[in-house]
Amino acid sequence: MKLICSKSNLLSGVQIVSKAVPNKTTMSILECILIDATGRNIKLIANDMELGIETIIEGDIVEKGQIALDAKIFLDIVRKLPDNQVVLETDKSFKTNIVCEKAKFTIIGKSGEDFSYLPSIEKIDHIIISQFTLKEVVRQTIFSISDNDNNKLMTGELFDINGDTLKVVSLDGHRISIRKIGLKNSYPSKKVVVPGKTLNEISKILSGDADKDVSIFFTGKHIVFEFDKTTVVSRLIEGEYFRIDQMLSSDYETKVTIHKREFLECIDRATLLVKEGDKKPIIINITDGVLELKINSTIGSMNEEIDITKQGKDLMIGFNPKFMIDALRVIDDELIDVYLVNPKAPCFIKDATENYIYLILPVNFTTVN
Amino acid sequence: MKLICSKSNLLSGVQIVSKAVPNKTTMSILECILIDATGRNIKLIANDMELGIETIIEGDIVEKGQIALDAKIFLDIVRKLPDNQVVLETDKSFKTNIVCEKAKFTIIGKSGEDFSYLPSIEKIDHIIISQFTLKEVVRQTIFSISDNDNNKLMTGELFDINGDTLKVVSLDGHRISIRKIGLKNSYPSKKVVVPGKTLNEISKILSGDADKDVSIFFTGKHIVFEFDKTTVVSRLIEGEYFRIDQMLSSDYETKVTIHKREFLECIDRATLLVKEGDKKPIIINITDGVLELKINSTIGSMNEEIDITKQGKDLMIGFNPKFMIDALRVIDDELIDVYLVNPKAPCFIKDATENYIYLILPVNFTTVN
Repeated sequence: MKLICSKSNLLSGVQIVSKAVPNKTTMSILECILIDATGRNIKLIANDMELGIETIIEGDIVEKGQIALDAKIFLDIVRKLPDNQVVLETDKSFKTNIVCEKAKFTIIGKSGEDFSYLPSIEKIDHIIISQFTLKEVVRQTIFSISDNDNNKLMTGELFDINGDTLKVVSLDGHRISIRKIGLKNSYPSKKVVVPGKTLNEISKILSGDADKDVSIFFTGKHIVFEFDKTTVVSRLIEGEYFRIDQMLSSDYETKVTIHKREFLECIDRATLLVKEGDKKPIIINITDGVLELKINSTIGSMNEEIDITKQGKDLMIGFNPKFMIDALRVIDDELIDVYLVNPKAPCFIKDATENYIYLILPVNFTTVN
Repeated sequence: MKLICSKSNLLSGVQIVSKAVPNKTTMSILECILIDATGRNIKLIANDMELGIETIIEGDIVEKGQIALDAKIFLDIVRKLPDNQVVLETDKSFKTNIVCEKAKFTIIGKSGEDFSYLPSIEKIDHIIISQFTLKEVVRQTIFSISDNDNNKLMTGELFDINGDTLKVVSLDGHRISIRKIGLKNSYPSKKVVVPGKTLNEISKILSGDADKDVSIFFTGKHIVFEFDKTTVVSRLIEGEYFRIDQMLSSDYETKVTIHKREFLECIDRATLLVKEGDKKPIIINITDGVLELKINSTIGSMNEEIDITKQGKDLMIGFNPKFMIDALRVIDDELIDVYLVNPKAPCFIKDATENYIYLILPVNFTTVN
């Protein structure tokens, strides 16, 4: 095989597919990137059996062929090459020369025949959204998946398509994040659970460009994302997702309208007094026009008052500050509405049209002072 | 005690003195910053017994007094306060209220009487250099001190004042770094060895401003740096520094003039093939007009040629690539001169006026291929 391409094209391609290379594996072929120049295009492929990424890079195929190269070493080498044309040439013993200007690297690759290609997926059902929207919706929900494998479904996100709406849901037993996205077209109903890891990796690859689209295809077992010259194939998590509708109630006893940034900075300050691993709650006391936030720990104490607009009853309630911070960080509104019932019932942060809903369970607290 | 000052003044002061707070200590008072408002100014002081820093911040003293506060917690709190006036108030039980806008923190401090003040130094001998120059000279030499305490003198840098020249020297047994600085005035001869830790910390505080000066005072056991509103006092390392003059020879067999950036990037690429902890040398082969750099490792091999101007004999010599990279990174010249004798003798990188001299010992290598 002999290829010529620019360093920058090669680098961006290798960076993209490297996202599907596992950090640790016993199968050394999975640590490789396949460079496939057997057809018309130069394809780079990586595949950890759950998640596979393929991308096409521009360049000239002087001699057809394929080679599997250790992803980490190959990425390191390409990254440090001079910014010029790169010639990549292999021989029958898989010796690979990488030449750029006067620099010449030689590494030993593996036969491409041992490599497991991406599963071929029948592309029928699909939706189209912008790269920006997909990247945003993942950022706005991914924090509330569970990293505990005990309940596999909690490690993924529900993608629920219904007519012209895509609803993305994540939950970890303490909180639920829901985002609704309007689609340009109407699609048949479909519910799939996408692994959190896949969404995290795809977020890193997406340009976040609002003018560029992603096509998302679904099959029974896989989801495929196509954008730019890249295809990402991931297994789905099997099983029926949690019924969240019954957890969402629109009844409330107290409604608070508060400046998001003030509230966030105030909670952020309070967490200074919480040592890592310590599960100290913040205590929020809601009265007419004022929300008072209190925390007491072995380090010291803090209290602060924030002006609010309140409807309904006074209330004192405790929260894990991290859960509040996570939700507040991904809300763009300047003023937000918080709906509460009592110190034992979940609180809701949502906008009027329910384009976002963040449900957070309160924690018990013992009143001190 | 009761003080009023701006958050930004307080923050920059606390950040400066925090550099002298030890990470781990059995004496909890050393983990504190002393806020001393017993006199006319608000002073912040930290002192780990080797290195002490004192700085004055602007603000109003409403009620005189002093308090020692845990440095880490206090810094965290100040950093997250709103950007406004801060009121700091203590009572007799060392309870300290930190109030800013509607946020109120309460932490428990310690009596300032337990705090060890900076040693008072008789300020006689001193030199003046710019903050920029001091920061630069430390950056350009600090990498070749030893982090091994076995030979205490190697963990510091020699400050050698002679007439209107300051010579700064560091060495670790494998290499020597020397920088000469011209002083505006002439001073009596003086040689002291300053701990590397002191120089590292002071570098972080110095603004790097070429228009602002640092006064450096010496006593038998201490060095004092005065700049802006900050005083840094450090113990000196006792003992006689190594006689480096006899290691410096101006004889050479081969002189190479090379583009610094090309050389650096080439060595940088070669180190990709060296696993961490592996002591693989790079092999440099010098012939007329060309320097060829080679490396062979379990990962693969690399070679690259660089155009040079050569005087004298051909030579093949091996180096620890890290030592070369460290020296090349801190040289600003575009073209550099490298002086060599034979594969067993040290190489010198120096400019014509010897404002900088970097000596690097070669390593043995077995010629492969």
